[in-house]
Amino acid sequence: MTETFPRSPDAKPPTMIDVARRAGVGLGTVSRVVNGGAGVRAETAERVRAAIDELGFQRNEVARALRPGKKSSSLALVLGDLTNPFFATIAKASLEVAGQSGFAVVLGSVDEDPEGEKRAIQELIGRQVAGLMIVPDQSDHSFLMSAGVPVVFVDRPAHGIDADIVMVDNEAGGKVATDHLLGQGHRRVAILLAPSYYTTGRRLRGYRRAHREAGVPVDESLVVQLPEGTAEAAEKATSELMDQADPPTALFASTNFVTEGVLRGLGDNTRPAVVGFDDFRMADMLPTPVTVVASDIADLGRTAARLLLARAAGTDTRPPQRIVLPAVLIQRGSGERPPV
Amino acid sequence: MTETFPRSPDAKPPTMIDVARRAGVGLGTVSRVVNGGAGVRAETAERVRAAIDELGFQRNEVARALRPGKKSSSLALVLGDLTNPFFATIAKASLEVAGQSGFAVVLGSVDEDPEGEKRAIQELIGRQVAGLMIVPDQSDHSFLMSAGVPVVFVDRPAHGIDADIVMVDNEAGGKVATDHLLGQGHRRVAILLAPSYYTTGRRLRGYRRAHREAGVPVDESLVVQLPEGTAEAAEKATSELMDQADPPTALFASTNFVTEGVLRGLGDNTRPAVVGFDDFRMADMLPTPVTVVASDIADLGRTAARLLLARAAGTDTRPPQRIVLPAVLIQRGSGERPPV
Repeated sequence: MTETFPRSPDAKPPTMIDVARRAGVGLGTVSRVVNGGAGVRAETAERVRAAIDELGFQRNEVARALRPGKKSSSLALVLGDLTNPFFATIAKASLEVAGQSGFAVVLGSVDEDPEGEKRAIQELIGRQVAGLMIVPDQSDHSFLMSAGVPVVFVDRPAHGIDADIVMVDNEAGGKVATDHLLGQGHRRVAILLAPSYYTTGRRLRGYRRAHREAGVPVDESLVVQLPEGTAEAAEKATSELMDQADPPTALFASTNFVTEGVLRGLGDNTRPAVVGFDDFRMADMLPTPVTVVASDIADLGRTAARLLLARAAGTDTRPPQRIVLPAVLIQRGSGERPPV
Repeated sequence: MTETFPRSPDAKPPTMIDVARRAGVGLGTVSRVVNGGAGVRAETAERVRAAIDELGFQRNEVARALRPGKKSSSLALVLGDLTNPFFATIAKASLEVAGQSGFAVVLGSVDEDPEGEKRAIQELIGRQVAGLMIVPDQSDHSFLMSAGVPVVFVDRPAHGIDADIVMVDNEAGGKVATDHLLGQGHRRVAILLAPSYYTTGRRLRGYRRAHREAGVPVDESLVVQLPEGTAEAAEKATSELMDQADPPTALFASTNFVTEGVLRGLGDNTRPAVVGFDDFRMADMLPTPVTVVASDIADLGRTAARLLLARAAGTDTRPPQRIVLPAVLIQRGSGERPPV
């Protein structure tokens, strides 16, 4: 008997929840019924079966949707502080790509804490995800070799494991930023570096290479390793730099938060040129619009998610890939101030 | 036999992954062994059991951790665009609270798309989460009554279901912003409203109440309903408002993105006063620092996550709660410009 439910022409197909609702039971009861009916009263089970028939469902369709943990359709994403727009953009892009393939995303957010990251990853693997996307810290990731699911690293390669990596061209970005400043005649260009992430190390290599090619020696007192990657740390370091007897005439900030701190540290001093790495919202609205080196971070997230889905589906069986996205200079004003 | 693994004094307790590694198998094999050993060769199973013993594990501890879908320790979080710092802050705070209780968070991000939201919620329920945190749209959410898991709404109540809600005091916030502008003598105060979310409707009520109490009639041409809640839409509407014969002397922007658009629309015109709803990063760094009405959004996320965990654990059995967080005025300059 298939009495169909009255529906408007544009109605969506019925769902498990429609079944539960029509039968007047919870989703758990529907699940137990389609998986054999253990622990459900005969009368209730009959009501659920009737609701399934009435709504025109294939029973095995319901069963498949409700069978726990059989075939995972979740991806795990482990990354840093979500209130950093860089990570939020990666998360948003991954969710979109995963969602288009019917995958959910389980999130682990850890802020540069190696033990926390390892714990988060292990818990996510225990939840039987189909694959892992990780923005790794500097610690050893060889423990992932026994994870049994594909892993794609994002933004930074990991130590101790050969896996896919999708990243931006940090060294080229560091070079183009520094070339730009040296090309305008700046000879004292400071670089402010968030702690020893892979990315900032590469940006520093670009900075050094630009100096070498321009024949300008690097004054090591202008290479500033920040104790942490916050705006506060960068603000303090900038004040100290500018209080030197021979301050820099230009500053290269190695991340978006560092750029914010450099601008705060400079305050009303609008003489030094500033170039930041990573674009940020309202960079163009600040008193002097901010010149940055930027990559398409949404594309970074999308590319990684697509690669992971292909690995999880087994449609991509190539050896580990290394995908590098370009970083380009966006001139807005702060990076075009001449040396004084 | 319990030969213990050599460990440094500060080593963490062993994990499932350590077992898999020591036994030289995948995590799935460890899972099958502790759950009965079906489909695993006797010799392999023995190796896994030896690894478990050697690492000093309780076998049922491993089993519990690896048993799929038995007792969920995931929460689902459904919210809007993660690149909106408002949503990113809620997500970050929820993850922290959930993580402290050993819960993971499965994320669904949908951008004001009722069908997308419903689909995301149903998929998340199918993944057997222990509870749902939802920033709901305006559509009917009565389908959640059969979800079988606790639901906490964040930022906006939902229609058709009586459930916990944690929100900010939108009406009081709208009133304090408008009071502030009227109190300085502004008589033509525009309000720019993102589309009909519950929150902006309440902010408009506060705006109207402030006018009523001050005995200032509202000019309905200054109540602007934007077609969408983007900076672009607010920028366009602001340009049109300022091109009027009798433009406003003050503007109240109902969300962070609307505030950005208002500032872009005003461009070099620094005469009108501006107050925004919701604080945002670098609001204090713009050419005129931006006055806002703000709530503690991280606290909004934390409060909702704590409530949901207590509901999921069964330790909170009160009737549905309505928790309202205060909104306070932060004066920075843009809201203190006098009428001209």
